[in-house]
Amino acid sequence: MTKRILIITGDGGESYETWFAVQRFQEAGYLAHVAAPSKRRLNLVMHDFEPGWDTYKESPGYAIESDLTFDEVRVDDYEAVMCIGGRAPEYLRNNTRVLAILREFDAQQKWLFSICHGIQLIAAAGLAKGKRFTCYEHVRFEVEAVGGQYVAADTVTDGRLVSSPTWREQPEFYRHVFACLQQPASVGARP
Amino acid sequence: MTKRILIITGDGGESYETWFAVQRFQEAGYLAHVAAPSKRRLNLVMHDFEPGWDTYKESPGYAIESDLTFDEVRVDDYEAVMCIGGRAPEYLRNNTRVLAILREFDAQQKWLFSICHGIQLIAAAGLAKGKRFTCYEHVRFEVEAVGGQYVAADTVTDGRLVSSPTWREQPEFYRHVFACLQQPASVGARP
Amino acid sequence: MTKRILIITGDGGESYETWFAVQRFQEAGYLAHVAAPSKRRLNLVMHDFEPGWDTYKESPGYAIESDLTFDEVRVDDYEAVMCIGGRAPEYLRNNTRVLAILREFDAQQKWLFSICHGIQLIAAAGLAKGKRFTCYEHVRFEVEAVGGQYVAADTVTDGRLVSSPTWREQPEFYRHVFACLQQPASVGARP
Amino acid sequence: MTKRILIITGDGGESYETWFAVQRFQEAGYLAHVAAPSKRRLNLVMHDFEPGWDTYKESPGYAIESDLTFDEVRVDDYEAVMCIGGRAPEYLRNNTRVLAILREFDAQQKWLFSICHGIQLIAAAGLAKGKRFTCYEHVRFEVEAVGGQYVAADTVTDGRLVSSPTWREQPEFYRHVFACLQQPASVGARP
Amino acid sequence: MTKRILIITGDGGESYETWFAVQRFQEAGYLAHVAAPSKRRLNLVMHDFEPGWDTYKESPGYAIESDLTFDEVRVDDYEAVMCIGGRAPEYLRNNTRVLAILREFDAQQKWLFSICHGIQLIAAAGLAKGKRFTCYEHVRFEVEAVGGQYVAADTVTDGRLVSSPTWREQPEFYRHVFACLQQPASVGARP
Amino acid sequence: MTKRILIITGDGGESYETWFAVQRFQEAGYLAHVAAPSKRRLNLVMHDFEPGWDTYKESPGYAIESDLTFDEVRVDDYEAVMCIGGRAPEYLRNNTRVLAILREFDAQQKWLFSICHGIQLIAAAGLAKGKRFTCYEHVRFEVEAVGGQYVAADTVTDGRLVSSPTWREQPEFYRHVFACLQQPASVGARP
Repeated sequence: MTKRILIITGDGGESYETWFAVQRFQEAGYLAHVAAPSKRRLNLVMHDFEPGWDTYKESPGYAIESDLTFDEVRVDDYEAVMCIGGRAPEYLRNNTRVLAILREFDAQQKWLFSICHGIQLIAAAGLAKGKRFTCYEHVRFEVEAVGGQYVAADTVTDGRLVSSPTWREQPEFYRHVFACLQQPASVGARP
Repeated sequence: MTKRILIITGDGGESYETWFAVQRFQEAGYLAHVAAPSKRRLNLVMHDFEPGWDTYKESPGYAIESDLTFDEVRVDDYEAVMCIGGRAPEYLRNNTRVLAILREFDAQQKWLFSICHGIQLIAAAGLAKGKRFTCYEHVRFEVEAVGGQYVAADTVTDGRLVSSPTWREQPEFYRHVFACLQQPASVGARP
Repeated sequence: MTKRILIITGDGGESYETWFAVQRFQEAGYLAHVAAPSKRRLNLVMHDFEPGWDTYKESPGYAIESDLTFDEVRVDDYEAVMCIGGRAPEYLRNNTRVLAILREFDAQQKWLFSICHGIQLIAAAGLAKGKRFTCYEHVRFEVEAVGGQYVAADTVTDGRLVSSPTWREQPEFYRHVFACLQQPASVGARP
Repeated sequence: MTKRILIITGDGGESYETWFAVQRFQEAGYLAHVAAPSKRRLNLVMHDFEPGWDTYKESPGYAIESDLTFDEVRVDDYEAVMCIGGRAPEYLRNNTRVLAILREFDAQQKWLFSICHGIQLIAAAGLAKGKRFTCYEHVRFEVEAVGGQYVAADTVTDGRLVSSPTWREQPEFYRHVFACLQQPASVGARP
Repeated sequence: MTKRILIITGDGGESYETWFAVQRFQEAGYLAHVAAPSKRRLNLVMHDFEPGWDTYKESPGYAIESDLTFDEVRVDDYEAVMCIGGRAPEYLRNNTRVLAILREFDAQQKWLFSICHGIQLIAAAGLAKGKRFTCYEHVRFEVEAVGGQYVAADTVTDGRLVSSPTWREQPEFYRHVFACLQQPASVGARP
Repeated sequence: MTKRILIITGDGGESYETWFAVQRFQEAGYLAHVAAPSKRRLNLVMHDFEPGWDTYKESPGYAIESDLTFDEVRVDDYEAVMCIGGRAPEYLRNNTRVLAILREFDAQQKWLFSICHGIQLIAAAGLAKGKRFTCYEHVRFEVEAVGGQYVAADTVTDGRLVSSPTWREQPEFYRHVFACLQQPASVGARP
């Protein structure tokens, strides 16, 4: 069977991060499934930086069709999970099914990938505690609050958690992601 | 001297919350000063709900001119501080000057008002610990993580902290805000 | 019974003025009902000033659900009526039911509040004749044409008509609005 | 010398009406000069109808460079003046130089063309009194208030005033415009 | 019977070119029918130039209702066909029915008008071969590739093909269009 | 020295295709240089499909800073060139320096990668003649016109030309791109 990656997002998810993940995993031979609260065309957003703003600017992004609902997810079917950034993680962290899915990935010793605000899901699921991580610089506070240890780096791997700051660091991030997928997650170690 | 209220926001701040605060305090006879990272026209945003979205949608909002920079703020000049929501609190909580200002308001036993994501500043300043609060429902996790106790209500007052979920609950919120301002903050009590 | 205020707007109505009115009256303990041509989500607009423009710029604004249609309005139920600005008054002044409602408020000696372009409704209903008023500066011509007397001020009260230029003068305007509501409209006098 | 037409608009002017006028007159061999408050790229707007709205919707339109300022206009140089619609007439009617220009065209017995909201300028200049006219249906009130007589038609010619409701009636309107330009305006008669 | 002109466009068609064509022909007494892939409100676009861009910028344009589908077109009913620019010609040139319509106009020795990208349809129908033409400067390559001879001019007439670069040259273009319609297309000659 | 890839785009270039290319090559260890008419922040666009449209819809996309101008390009420094799609190729094909660059890549027997409208550059440079290729389906006409042979496939490799229809086929496309880069371009053969 073709190996599968689960991608978690929803309305407000960052569009470039979502499409890059889907297509990058497909290129590498995986089936990449986008899970969301419902199965439909998602309203993804564009988070980009523009002169004259002290933070990123949000605009409509590339849309994507979700492949399945969170309720339909069977963790056994997937090698790993990717938590996409943007504004979706903010409300998805209040979705108990999402948190249960992430904990099950962890319990099965599978890889947890997180980019940008995706770390909010990892934190809410209780999986950042005691872990070194990175994320969009302005989200670090929330993760440190639950016991994570922020590292300013393009990618940070700690155990089975691989995290990255924003879509700007995707080249370094995906190098690590695929290096990790070469080895069984259950033996993941601090690099 | 005319009494003053400090309003904290920046690019990405919620435009309706900002203008409502400025004008509501002005109506009540206060000088309302908007503090931001720099003194200029701020790129405020509109957070509104639209059919077909699982979360709010962000669009360009009403702009406002900030009155002073955080560096120029003298806490002694103000009766209270209002932390505006939207996306500005996300990055302002990494601004140590903002956190120092909030702690000084607290140290001087002045009122701390927070709407929506504004609570992120209160939490980052360490002022939510042990406090009952409310906020936009999807931000509660971050505040509980630092020891706050979330309450699902239109307004929650605990000591000198008065908080509210979103701009939709402003009527109830501002009733409390002005009731509080009638009494010395230093004697604020759990209602 | 809780006192009620009727708010008149429609597609193209100014979104900040509408929401401010609704919430400000709610804060003060009133039921605020938005009446429009139909009962649905209204396409309100944002009128804001931007560098490089000789007039305001229009963009999509915060939406609001109307509470009742003009046909459903019973003037007896309300203390006062608020005419919102933006572009809605332009076409609502051709709606005979709207004009009848306003005349009935006047006949019952109730308060008529008007902000910005809202004065176009007052004028079309024949209620500006011989009255001192203010409004968005570029609308004054139309009201003077029907016998109104323009005054350049933040708020102007003449009899039971209280008017204001734009949403920028709302603090002063609402101070007058609530001062008026303290007294019976039927004894309204030139301040 | 090539015959000239003066076109009056500014920021907020309707973009299709402006460009159509400029190019239609050029096709007919005229020099078409756009006069505005300043000589620069104007922020014209698009007024279009969209399902679900009770009025037109405004969006950014095609831009145009103005050719001269109102101060630079010499009425002697032009055969006729065209008052463009959109939102520009609202504020231009408070510009005394614009009104003086229109009155001078009238005094020199030249043609006055008006489309949509353009009639607001004619009315403000005192040139609609006693005249049959047409315009965007929701602007009629203002013109009737100063003594004009509204006619529901695609084009109305009364003396030297030729008016039209909106850009949708341009075919009929321009047929009249060019028919008028064939004859000396000074002998214009009710058709 | 009133003479008729067929106008070919679809979603992505240039909105000013489309409306100008429809109304200009109507003014001249023609019925102007917009044919498109389906009969509905078309999503036309605005192609305008803005400082800071090396090419035109695309934005939502004025919408229009199409009058008939390509399948419903009977070439016998029309005097001429106008190929509108924008982005619609790009995909319409893969519509065999559109190409058949154009070839039938040519076979019946009727006029072929083309503005901007409209020439892509003429080229795809095989009607540009050996013809002098003009078009948006960056489309010339495609037409030269099929044997057309590009001329840098405001309007180029060769036989029954009359073409123009962009909507900026419409005045000159329509002068030629109407001059051509005065004479039988079957005797069209190189001017 | 780190191997380099040249990426050709400009204002109107497709933003996802551009960023994906830059980051995908970076992940693989290449320096990815974006060449454009000038060295500045480029106005890239988003080409996405939306229900109700017969073609793609264009909106503002993710911006990118170009790294060098076409004049500064030294073909010797690069392993291969990637021609990005969107609307940039339309006008870049009239840039003789761009065509010279592409011909030099070909002369040096280096890889030519093309996605979507990128093929317009290949065609204009005279490098599609006699080659099997693929591209956005509505651009095929132009390339067939100069002697290319269109193939409906996710990726087509012919000699040193590797082409792909749209960003939707990037997974398959980049598999081929990297397979090609493993072998010397000078021995590229029809697969």
